[in-house]
Amino acid sequence: MSEIVKIAVDAMGGDNSPKKVIEGIEISLKKNKKNYFYIYGDENLLNKEISKTKLVKNYSEIINTKDIILDDESPLTAAKGGKNSSMWKTIESLKEKKTDISISAGNTGALLVISRLLLKTIEGISKPALAALWPNKNNMNVVLDLGANIECDKKNLCDFASMGSALFKSLFEGERPKVALLNVGLEEHKGNDVLKKTYAVLKNNKVKNFNFTGYIEGNHIMDGNVDVIVTDGFTGNIALKTAEGTANFITKGLKNSLNKLSILISFYSLKKFKEKLDPRKYNGAIFLGLESPVVKSHGGTDSIGFAHSINVCNKIVNANLIAKIKSNLITVDGESNE
Amino acid sequence: MSEIVKIAVDAMGGDNSPKKVIEGIEISLKKNKKNYFYIYGDENLLNKEISKTKLVKNYSEIINTKDIILDDESPLTAAKGGKNSSMWKTIESLKEKKTDISISAGNTGALLVISRLLLKTIEGISKPALAALWPNKNNMNVVLDLGANIECDKKNLCDFASMGSALFKSLFEGERPKVALLNVGLEEHKGNDVLKKTYAVLKNNKVKNFNFTGYIEGNHIMDGNVDVIVTDGFTGNIALKTAEGTANFITKGLKNSLNKLSILISFYSLKKFKEKLDPRKYNGAIFLGLESPVVKSHGGTDSIGFAHSINVCNKIVNANLIAKIKSNLITVDGESNE
Repeated sequence: MSEIVKIAVDAMGGDNSPKKVIEGIEISLKKNKKNYFYIYGDENLLNKEISKTKLVKNYSEIINTKDIILDDESPLTAAKGGKNSSMWKTIESLKEKKTDISISAGNTGALLVISRLLLKTIEGISKPALAALWPNKNNMNVVLDLGANIECDKKNLCDFASMGSALFKSLFEGERPKVALLNVGLEEHKGNDVLKKTYAVLKNNKVKNFNFTGYIEGNHIMDGNVDVIVTDGFTGNIALKTAEGTANFITKGLKNSLNKLSILISFYSLKKFKEKLDPRKYNGAIFLGLESPVVKSHGGTDSIGFAHSINVCNKIVNANLIAKIKSNLITVDGESNE
Repeated sequence: MSEIVKIAVDAMGGDNSPKKVIEGIEISLKKNKKNYFYIYGDENLLNKEISKTKLVKNYSEIINTKDIILDDESPLTAAKGGKNSSMWKTIESLKEKKTDISISAGNTGALLVISRLLLKTIEGISKPALAALWPNKNNMNVVLDLGANIECDKKNLCDFASMGSALFKSLFEGERPKVALLNVGLEEHKGNDVLKKTYAVLKNNKVKNFNFTGYIEGNHIMDGNVDVIVTDGFTGNIALKTAEGTANFITKGLKNSLNKLSILISFYSLKKFKEKLDPRKYNGAIFLGLESPVVKSHGGTDSIGFAHSINVCNKIVNANLIAKIKSNLITVDGESNE
């Protein structure tokens, strides 16, 4: 029997908020009432949206906040001047242990900086990382880091392997996820120095929580042969956005090429495939490595995407992700920057 | 009036060679007879294939070579023991100025190492780079480096900008190609130190041969707003392969989802789109920065893809790519490794 999960919600970030946030909560409550929401934002706007829903008022309380961190605000400005913002107050509720997990569709950079300011890093973790779900032939991978850390050393990458496999186990079945390092080739001598050193540590480490399967190349990310893909934040960000750009290019090109009759006839056969690829299902990057989990919804997603992220929040807390990360950590010699 | 282009062909590398190589030459000759081919490989096999074609024998000569560099051979083994191979002899003909350009569908690593061993680097260029064509909304981009250099400094990246724009001008219209640096964000402070330094040089340099447009993110590579995208070989390789993997994932998933009737009805409308995305049209990476151009055909392409690469060879020589690169170079202060 799972406990009620207390979710802190920044209702003011991203496109079309707080409307999509409140609708997203409503959608999630229709399926699962084992969440309780602390909703941070402009009281008047929130009450107006909540009055249009049936369930939200019974499973939430509003905490009125004055300020909003804008999507194009610099993270440092946001951190300095944002103490009365819905985002800051959301993270603060985690610090005060009032809530179990937080979710925001707002400014990613500001969210990372504020989270690092207010929350402690898990002991033994050098840098927190941003992880996301990536569709593959069978189901989904966890990929990290996607942009929190531009430069990483072997200790960071080994931590990402531990944290990524803890996340995978929290969201999906399987006791020992398969972990691979993203590289430009499969042979042990390929890649830069950091990758070679990380390979050596992971290969020789008798870890009980995941299986290290070696390197993986970009063209095999979606093959479904591994569960967790580890990379530095620069490479991960380029890979994720390149995949997004390619998917958009193809699906738009395809849509423009199909005539109306063929769209009609293809509709049902295409529907299943489109559902599999629906980006709303993969919505929700998770900031891993802090004492509390911080979930980032895509700013451009809609209420259905936001509801998917709430589902991720629920799973993460019920699976006790933070405890899993702590027990997953591996020892890396020479833990200084190198 | 263009001169006859003398193309050195390594006929033994890649899948299904030399059959696809000879067929590719035949296809190219049907459209353009202003090429002459020096074909390196096993005489008996080549004669057998050439006897099945109409044009090849009148526009080529065979140079019999004993050895073949295998696709899975390590580049260093190939360089040490490969002196009698078709690949080595092909590059040697460039060194001896017997030919204008070379093409091979063989082992990429070996081709890069042998080319660097036998050919001089263009004065002023620190590291040669591997460039390729990438489809976009309007036409094609040039992207480099795609894997020749795992680590790059600002001087290398500035050279790539010069070489990439020279290649773009050789293959397409336009006097001042738009050049962008691949990064994780658009703001000047984003990315690693090398990118920030390169940005500063390119922004302040009054170059006459290209327009520097700043940073570009992975999701905009295919938007068609820039002509040349510059990155280090590690990032470029990950981005290219991730895009390939994503494209394969979507097109295969789509094919499996469509029923036979909808495929039939969609056939003509899909045909045009599929033609645009046909990877054979983008076949042919170009190794830039040596005194002669070296073209790498994809090992897995077929005769049509190989013919496309021959077309690229012809354009590059007629446009005098090497002279364009030399006149395109920009001065970078502090040209040592940093």
